[in-house]
Amino acid sequence: MGRRSTGNVPELVERAREGDARAVARLISLVEDASPLLREVMAGLAPYAGNAHVVGITGSPGVGKSTSTSALVTELRKAGQRVGVLAVDPSSPFSGGALLGDRVRMQDHALDRDVYIRSMASRGHLGGLSWSTPQALRVLDAAGCDVILVETVGVGQSEVEIAGMADTTLILLAPGMGDGIQAAKAGILEVGDVYVVNKADRDGADQVRRELRSMLALAERSGDDWRPPIVKTVAAKGEGLDEVVAEIGNHREWLASSGERDVRRLRRARDEVEAIAVTALRERWGDVHGRSELDELAGAVVAGDTDPYAAADRLLADIGEGLTAT
Amino acid sequence: MGRRSTGNVPELVERAREGDARAVARLISLVEDASPLLREVMAGLAPYAGNAHVVGITGSPGVGKSTSTSALVTELRKAGQRVGVLAVDPSSPFSGGALLGDRVRMQDHALDRDVYIRSMASRGHLGGLSWSTPQALRVLDAAGCDVILVETVGVGQSEVEIAGMADTTLILLAPGMGDGIQAAKAGILEVGDVYVVNKADRDGADQVRRELRSMLALAERSGDDWRPPIVKTVAAKGEGLDEVVAEIGNHREWLASSGERDVRRLRRARDEVEAIAVTALRERWGDVHGRSELDELAGAVVAGDTDPYAAADRLLADIGEGLTAT
Repeated sequence: MGRRSTGNVPELVERAREGDARAVARLISLVEDASPLLREVMAGLAPYAGNAHVVGITGSPGVGKSTSTSALVTELRKAGQRVGVLAVDPSSPFSGGALLGDRVRMQDHALDRDVYIRSMASRGHLGGLSWSTPQALRVLDAAGCDVILVETVGVGQSEVEIAGMADTTLILLAPGMGDGIQAAKAGILEVGDVYVVNKADRDGADQVRRELRSMLALAERSGDDWRPPIVKTVAAKGEGLDEVVAEIGNHREWLASSGERDVRRLRRARDEVEAIAVTALRERWGDVHGRSELDELAGAVVAGDTDPYAAADRLLADIGEGLTAT
Repeated sequence: MGRRSTGNVPELVERAREGDARAVARLISLVEDASPLLREVMAGLAPYAGNAHVVGITGSPGVGKSTSTSALVTELRKAGQRVGVLAVDPSSPFSGGALLGDRVRMQDHALDRDVYIRSMASRGHLGGLSWSTPQALRVLDAAGCDVILVETVGVGQSEVEIAGMADTTLILLAPGMGDGIQAAKAGILEVGDVYVVNKADRDGADQVRRELRSMLALAERSGDDWRPPIVKTVAAKGEGLDEVVAEIGNHREWLASSGERDVRRLRRARDEVEAIAVTALRERWGDVHGRSELDELAGAVVAGDTDPYAAADRLLADIGEGLTAT
């Protein structure tokens, strides 16, 4: 791959800003591949990001996330919004088939110039969000998306991770999934901004809503005054999505007027900067001179020759004078 | 709390090694409270840890983890083993009640001098393992436990976390829990060393075993040659636990003979040392002069004045000359 196929970064950024889908795709690939050009890409995008509203979409397998995401795209397009979709796939080989099937529905939008759709592998985090998701969000943001939907499979941590990255977090439930119990376990009561009971034409939808409402009333949500609405949808028929879009809009207005938007974005940037710095340090510790310093220290801990704190002190001393693990 | 109630660390360690349950409890409390004495505690324990076999026990809510843990303690005591139990509770207020009920069964062992039982709150990690679990393991280890059982609620990440800390990971399933599907999602196929189908007197137990067996045959397990057995139990009646103990023993022997035990312990120590060092750096970045350096950099990223990589470089430059995020 020579200079021609990689492309010139400032030119790619310029073309992405003009709505060139291939330039957008190329930039996201650079992000995914952790290209050596990544720093230059991020520096080039920095002045243009910060306008898109990021909507996280999560829920247990089977609640209809992909169908809902696709129906939401349709609804947002009706309103003239430019839409980005990041589908973060679980890494498990077992679910590949099913998701591939779901993805096909997205092809309704494949020819729409104002919709960018991208599947990302979630490396390292089981079922969770890829480390590169925040950077891919920045690409779509700089490319002029008004709304970016991030769809992820809900298994444990990922609801919380997505809530950390999104302006508005949508939690999907459906009747007959045993979600009443799962809800409390997975922490979804604390992180949702809008709750959607999908497959609402099935038995039990009202019960799911009632149960959720009473649990939300009891949940300890960190002192905000947003009362998350519960919307019923039948995504496969496109029903109720207008209301979901309206509630996303309400939440967006609340975020802006309450100052919570800035709080969330600051937190997001903080997490991202910190993760980059920590990753750099991990690489340094993990491989300095062939055999890593960290391995040697870990060996001393296993042998009982030192303890983990003293070992951590040694790691820290390696990077800076006077640093200790206290 | 003056010096008297805290106790003298070398003396506490000495008493814990002699089997004094109160000294063990006190040391774990120092760990849990992140006491200023923590470093001294860890240094004091270092020469005496490394003998216990750590068994992680995980599975979805309702499979009978606590009952199984208690029955395992009974079985291990029959074999004359000194046993430690760390029960890592989920932080969700909703499940507190149910777990409290389970805990009661543990009181069968409350008067046994050779059983240490301790519940730990899982702070910060939703449903996952407490950051202080490895340190509490070291206390029980140094106190002469032959086997330490770590019981945790299985929601997403925690199976993987516990597998990182345990020598042998037990995955519990039960008929009628929809675990067949959950199995693939949560990554339990990759991390279990021994699988237990509990409530085996119920309909569907054989089907769960069959399904699990065929999924395990397909799973991409990192190139080890241990073939995880599947054991059927009825923990409430104490049935099948002898076989579980036997399989734990088989796995323990395999770990030793294959060299995998050392690999796992080295990795565990590595993760622990790294986590301590990273936590120290996070604290430093998070609060330097009232308003934190990280907050200022995050603000510049949000404003588009800089990008996350350049911001990470600034963080790194603060701790050491010439460090960059590449």
